[in-house]
Amino acid sequence: MQLALPDTLRWQDDQLHLLDQRQLPQHIEYLAIETLEQAWQAIHTLTVRGAPAIGIAAAYALAQSMHPRHLETHEEFLRRLQGNADYLKSARPTAVNLAWAVDELVKAGQSSPTYNTLVEAAVEIHREDELICRHIGEHGAGLIEPGANLLTHCNAGSLAVSRFGTATAPMYHQHAAGVPFHVYVDETRPLYQGARLTAWELSQSGIDVTLICDSMAATVMSQGKVDLVIVGTDRVTANGDVVNKIGTLGLAVLCHHYSVPFYVACPSSTYDEQTPTGAAVPIEERNAEEIRQSHAATVTAYNPAFDVTPAALVTGIITERGIAHTAQDLAQLIPRTLAS
Amino acid sequence: MQLALPDTLRWQDDQLHLLDQRQLPQHIEYLAIETLEQAWQAIHTLTVRGAPAIGIAAAYALAQSMHPRHLETHEEFLRRLQGNADYLKSARPTAVNLAWAVDELVKAGQSSPTYNTLVEAAVEIHREDELICRHIGEHGAGLIEPGANLLTHCNAGSLAVSRFGTATAPMYHQHAAGVPFHVYVDETRPLYQGARLTAWELSQSGIDVTLICDSMAATVMSQGKVDLVIVGTDRVTANGDVVNKIGTLGLAVLCHHYSVPFYVACPSSTYDEQTPTGAAVPIEERNAEEIRQSHAATVTAYNPAFDVTPAALVTGIITERGIAHTAQDLAQLIPRTLAS
Repeated sequence: MQLALPDTLRWQDDQLHLLDQRQLPQHIEYLAIETLEQAWQAIHTLTVRGAPAIGIAAAYALAQSMHPRHLETHEEFLRRLQGNADYLKSARPTAVNLAWAVDELVKAGQSSPTYNTLVEAAVEIHREDELICRHIGEHGAGLIEPGANLLTHCNAGSLAVSRFGTATAPMYHQHAAGVPFHVYVDETRPLYQGARLTAWELSQSGIDVTLICDSMAATVMSQGKVDLVIVGTDRVTANGDVVNKIGTLGLAVLCHHYSVPFYVACPSSTYDEQTPTGAAVPIEERNAEEIRQSHAATVTAYNPAFDVTPAALVTGIITERGIAHTAQDLAQLIPRTLAS
Repeated sequence: MQLALPDTLRWQDDQLHLLDQRQLPQHIEYLAIETLEQAWQAIHTLTVRGAPAIGIAAAYALAQSMHPRHLETHEEFLRRLQGNADYLKSARPTAVNLAWAVDELVKAGQSSPTYNTLVEAAVEIHREDELICRHIGEHGAGLIEPGANLLTHCNAGSLAVSRFGTATAPMYHQHAAGVPFHVYVDETRPLYQGARLTAWELSQSGIDVTLICDSMAATVMSQGKVDLVIVGTDRVTANGDVVNKIGTLGLAVLCHHYSVPFYVACPSSTYDEQTPTGAAVPIEERNAEEIRQSHAATVTAYNPAFDVTPAALVTGIITERGIAHTAQDLAQLIPRTLAS
């Protein structure tokens, strides 16, 4: 399965290069990360976004920040590593992958406190992510029947991960297999990740796409034009609640009302067994200006970046290990040692 | 009840002046209508919008187009009147008020084929509309309890009619009575009528407003922060189906899911007893560029301007004659002679 899409990120000559997703679809430009502060900014301002891609970028950025500059004791190295890790984690609070990837590097550093170990661990997270997305694609492919109409929200595509995407992995898999289908893409206010990223990457790959405003999903569903919804997620809690881009909950309620299957695709690392329900997840509230600038409004605005879809509204969660239909399935599919 | 808002439209020195709603909230500018073609364009391009305001504007524009320029027989006058009326009706297909107001003028012209008769009929429609909105406000006011949280979509406000609005009339009524409440306003993609018009006119009037993206309504409802939804409508069909701005159907489904009362406010003239159900209403599909220009997307886009909310999802319809809870109520409230 090949994709005619630019790399989401690259590790070259001991330096992280990020595809600047704020410039898409007009410009394909890479930002070379020089400092840890720059990496923090890039994650915070959505230069790189999508839960798995943030994790990979943070892993590389953390490794890069530990490039040997002067003699350090192992203790000093580990203290600096932990400090840098904590700092990076603060860039975005909701996605679990950021903290997960950074913690993986800290663990690697603890067993062998060298720069090279950290780089190897980051490369391994990156390589693993690509494999995971391939497997998500294989497990989810059977949900897309020939002639199906899908709907997706935000970008859980190739641009959100290393390759293939999570929600889009079954689509890329079926497209490569020659199965015809069509995808409605929610534009995804306020930052338009659906319009700018998902609609762009799917159509670049030759998949039949129709862009709609978020408020039009009800109309196409009421007309019987949607057979299946697949979205990504930033965190799945122990009870199966799904935290994802604002607008996901509304879609899930519509699916429930119109009896449309609602699937969520994610790597195991998104499963947060430590957090009991979605109510316990900190929901990032972003600057109201992100909304107001589109229409020069001057009133108070509320801008939560994510919402929580209760497990009861989720038909299934597609992971690299198979499809889970209940929280019990999920816990069995993803053993404690992996998730914690 | 006084409003500190500019007039939606004015009739001055035999000429129609329209508040250019495309410039709001940055600029308060009036467009002086010179020709019938200009009036058609103004309606088509949403310089004036909102079902009742379109009706009033069309009535004045039709009267203005019949200003005596040369000698005409009554037959010639009526033929020209009918031709101009048919032309104006084609500016927007969904709202029933446009056709209703234009037909009222044709009827007036048929009983007395003079310019003055037409102007008087237009002034009467305008005056009547203001009275109707006052009465909608009185009937709906009791739904807004002290401390209530409301949510509305698009603009069924003062700017959509002559004064007070339809969905906003109960709000203006309670605000004038000193009752405190708070309103979430959906920004209403793709043309942002909620953000540009409703949030602006409510906050200008001193009402506590929070702007949200359309996709955030589910979140605030799931948090128990919405006690009541009131929207306007462009057409209510015989069975009680409600045709309104795209996004209304999704809201109604959310209200159903979260047990939030969903009310629709409109004048009797919006009730279209001749059309059995929403399925028979032509839904205007607008240029895809309206969506794409916001994010420079280049893919295919679908841009329906309205959706149909089935009567089963509507708690009640607030009219100037009272609140109807069923299609039977509605038919009793609005006698056949008025609706046809």
